[in-house]
Amino acid sequence: MDVIYSQTHARHAPREFLLRGNFAPMAETTARAENLVTAARAAGHKVSAPDDWGMAPVAAVHAVDYLEFLETGHQRWMELPGANAEIHPHSNPGRHMRARPEGIAGQVGFYIGDLSAPMVAGTWPASLASAHAAVQATELVLGGSPVAYALCRPPGHHAFADQAAGFCFINNVAVAAQHARGKAGRVAILDIDVHHGNGTQGIFWDRKDVFFCSLHADPSTFYPYYAGYHGESGGGAGAGYTLNLPLPHGTADADYMPALDRALAAINRFDPDVVLISLGFDAYEKDPLGVLKISTDGFAAMARRIAALGRPTVLVQEGGYHVDDLGRNLVAFLSAFETTIGGSRERR
Amino acid sequence: MDVIYSQTHARHAPREFLLRGNFAPMAETTARAENLVTAARAAGHKVSAPDDWGMAPVAAVHAVDYLEFLETGHQRWMELPGANAEIHPHSNPGRHMRARPEGIAGQVGFYIGDLSAPMVAGTWPASLASAHAAVQATELVLGGSPVAYALCRPPGHHAFADQAAGFCFINNVAVAAQHARGKAGRVAILDIDVHHGNGTQGIFWDRKDVFFCSLHADPSTFYPYYAGYHGESGGGAGAGYTLNLPLPHGTADADYMPALDRALAAINRFDPDVVLISLGFDAYEKDPLGVLKISTDGFAAMARRIAALGRPTVLVQEGGYHVDDLGRNLVAFLSAFETTIGGSRERR
Repeated sequence: MDVIYSQTHARHAPREFLLRGNFAPMAETTARAENLVTAARAAGHKVSAPDDWGMAPVAAVHAVDYLEFLETGHQRWMELPGANAEIHPHSNPGRHMRARPEGIAGQVGFYIGDLSAPMVAGTWPASLASAHAAVQATELVLGGSPVAYALCRPPGHHAFADQAAGFCFINNVAVAAQHARGKAGRVAILDIDVHHGNGTQGIFWDRKDVFFCSLHADPSTFYPYYAGYHGESGGGAGAGYTLNLPLPHGTADADYMPALDRALAAINRFDPDVVLISLGFDAYEKDPLGVLKISTDGFAAMARRIAALGRPTVLVQEGGYHVDDLGRNLVAFLSAFETTIGGSRERR
Repeated sequence: MDVIYSQTHARHAPREFLLRGNFAPMAETTARAENLVTAARAAGHKVSAPDDWGMAPVAAVHAVDYLEFLETGHQRWMELPGANAEIHPHSNPGRHMRARPEGIAGQVGFYIGDLSAPMVAGTWPASLASAHAAVQATELVLGGSPVAYALCRPPGHHAFADQAAGFCFINNVAVAAQHARGKAGRVAILDIDVHHGNGTQGIFWDRKDVFFCSLHADPSTFYPYYAGYHGESGGGAGAGYTLNLPLPHGTADADYMPALDRALAAINRFDPDVVLISLGFDAYEKDPLGVLKISTDGFAAMARRIAALGRPTVLVQEGGYHVDDLGRNLVAFLSAFETTIGGSRERR
């Protein structure tokens, strides 16, 4: 399978994020991507770097003022006396305030939604290259490949049109979906990261040309806490085009697959020309998050089911924090996917 | 002058808050209140403790679910493995999410709006006692005293009806204003803390029975960043009953007084039965915030102007972080206030 990967991700290497009131070692590390790409290469997948797709595909999804912040914000932040080299915003507009302040001390909280998206000097180039990987994989699929995998880092699905959060800055799968819309009439996004894809949901909330479906751990006691509930199903023209399937904590393979089948049936009903997968491996049974209990075989089973849709598919890497087993789970997923579509072809 | 003060404030003594991406020593310290009360006593003011006014005056302003969080949240937080004994929320709903999560890990970000309201085991009793001081001072004024001073700690004016922020948990001046409304038809709040009173503004935004006016340093590069601009003037039935007078950074006595006179003229036009002052000393020229340049004589001049309104006045302590000079500035303010109303009486 084509694997699109940019080494530029390594420029985004913050040390810490806030967790339960303490700074903890950053969980979203460069080692994650390195483990994934090493395993992909070892399994014989074809790894290549993305082209420079410029700003257009990113600006088709993200607000221009937000992109300006991502590009220039860190340098402006460092002009504040005593500023930490990692941006951890101390304030935010919340429910009750609206104004966008001119100064950087307030802008960091306006554009960075929480304390788990530490921004460093290299965050912008890394994020842009990550989005370009998603665009490149999408181009391959639009060009006729049945499937391609974008090894994105930083991940993207918690980024809103104008706000970073949860390790995410540019919403790679949203950029890819919008890019696909240039040639495809209908696009579906299936998010199987263990966290709700709140940013992706927000971006396509009021649209019916992009169907968004997320399987994730119940957010009432789990990030992102404030979205991902059953009742959220889209708004305006997009009412009914968002489907959330929160799962009880502890859900393992046997109970996950029926929920996945429900999501896939909904996607078939929508009948998309292209399917994009927000592919996290943090539902893994050994993931330090510990909230869902999917086995390596379970990821392979998920891949077989998704591949059986028989639709052009773009795989976009999201989370997964058991670094040592990331590559193993990826290879199991990609192999099962390829075997399934290979078998389908033979049967045709 | 009657000074209402509860020693219970000392139970709220967090060590740190987040500033420019680093944890910094907590600026809102117990020593602040101790310096203020010591100076007030030395100057001959009559210091007494508030009665227990219970929950009713607080619940008249704050949401019941928020009060439940303030009362029980810290204990629930401490059940999280590895939780810091000080609550520093790592996530929040932001612009794009609405749901109130059941779990405490998400609730802390739902109810605490930023990283400058660290909550500890004693925050709730301290906050309640602080609010009771404001109620007690208000009772004295409703009972005929021309003026009384509530030495509140924690401060209150950044607390919204359902959200803590900026060192504040219960909005003392809002509680006092609402309490005053039980006997007074029209109430005005003048906020002369160096920060915009965003919580107070939010609480009375759509009401015309409580006029809110704030003088503060321009928020575009200063906390609270997202509110306090000229254009914010109230909404709904309260449209026109909020007045913001942001001041250029560096403003000193000479340029402050015309702005204050404008605020006082607006208050006279509103013709309130009771005036409440959110009294911060952080506009002080030596305050570590360093943003406005008011002298000790300047605070006395402000007191003379406010006293010259000739209206029953409740003084409610807010910020001020040059600990050693807090009491000096307070005594200058109280003395000038009393001299002015004494002089007025003699002239009558």
